[in-house]
Amino acid sequence: MDDCIFCKIIKGEIPSYKIYEDKYVYAFLDIACDSYGHTLVIPKKHCVNLLDCEDKYLEKTICAVKKIANHYVEDCGFEGVNILNASGESAQQSVFHLHFHIIPRKNGDGIDIWPLKDKRDFDLKDICDKLKLN
Amino acid sequence: MDDCIFCKIIKGEIPSYKIYEDKYVYAFLDIACDSYGHTLVIPKKHCVNLLDCEDKYLEKTICAVKKIANHYVEDCGFEGVNILNASGESAQQSVFHLHFHIIPRKNGDGIDIWPLKDKRDFDLKDICDKLKLN
Repeated sequence: MDDCIFCKIIKGEIPSYKIYEDKYVYAFLDIACDSYGHTLVIPKKHCVNLLDCEDKYLEKTICAVKKIANHYVEDCGFEGVNILNASGESAQQSVFHLHFHIIPRKNGDGIDIWPLKDKRDFDLKDICDKLKLN
Repeated sequence: MDDCIFCKIIKGEIPSYKIYEDKYVYAFLDIACDSYGHTLVIPKKHCVNLLDCEDKYLEKTICAVKKIANHYVEDCGFEGVNILNASGESAQQSVFHLHFHIIPRKNGDGIDIWPLKDKRDFDLKDICDKLKLN
């Protein structure tokens, strides 16, 4: 898409710190500089987010996430990874081209990935009746 | 795997609030009660996490995540979703059967998904040279 910053990165119109590329997927360092090795993995065909991504590109993208994650753990000294995605402005998505964040992790790195700290008195049976798909 | 709690849920040996099931994937409400509709999506074939999941099961699992996310947005009144995964104990994984968290989101729900708040003085070129895969 012409005005999409990630499409411009894929085309090389905007420089990036490329980590990985294949026919379907492009991966590069996030420039936020908020954790060592923070990486974004995106499909080469534009889509807004997870909700409208073609299955084929979604499959290729998540398999590239796995490949990069294994490289970080096997070859680069990390011990694990977190994967994050925001789909929708209400979900804190800021760039509207699907991207999976990889946050490489090590013991004692001080990162706390888990955002939900409070417990609430939910009726899970009722929620399940409302949300179940089949 | 015999001693895996999620394998027992798939087999029905432990009850769950099932949201979705197909040949490859099972999805159910997280019992943590920390956000409305917090859902776990897991492959039916045991793997520890993203790092050791067969591509086929990983693809089926992420496509099920997409299907459920679209159902939540189109049919259930949510406006977006966050997807989270922890792979490895160092990445705060607690149950060692691959699971993607879906956190359904609405404007003004008070959730802040983004864990990385600090900026650091990283040399991105140097990091890219160390981490790049191809």
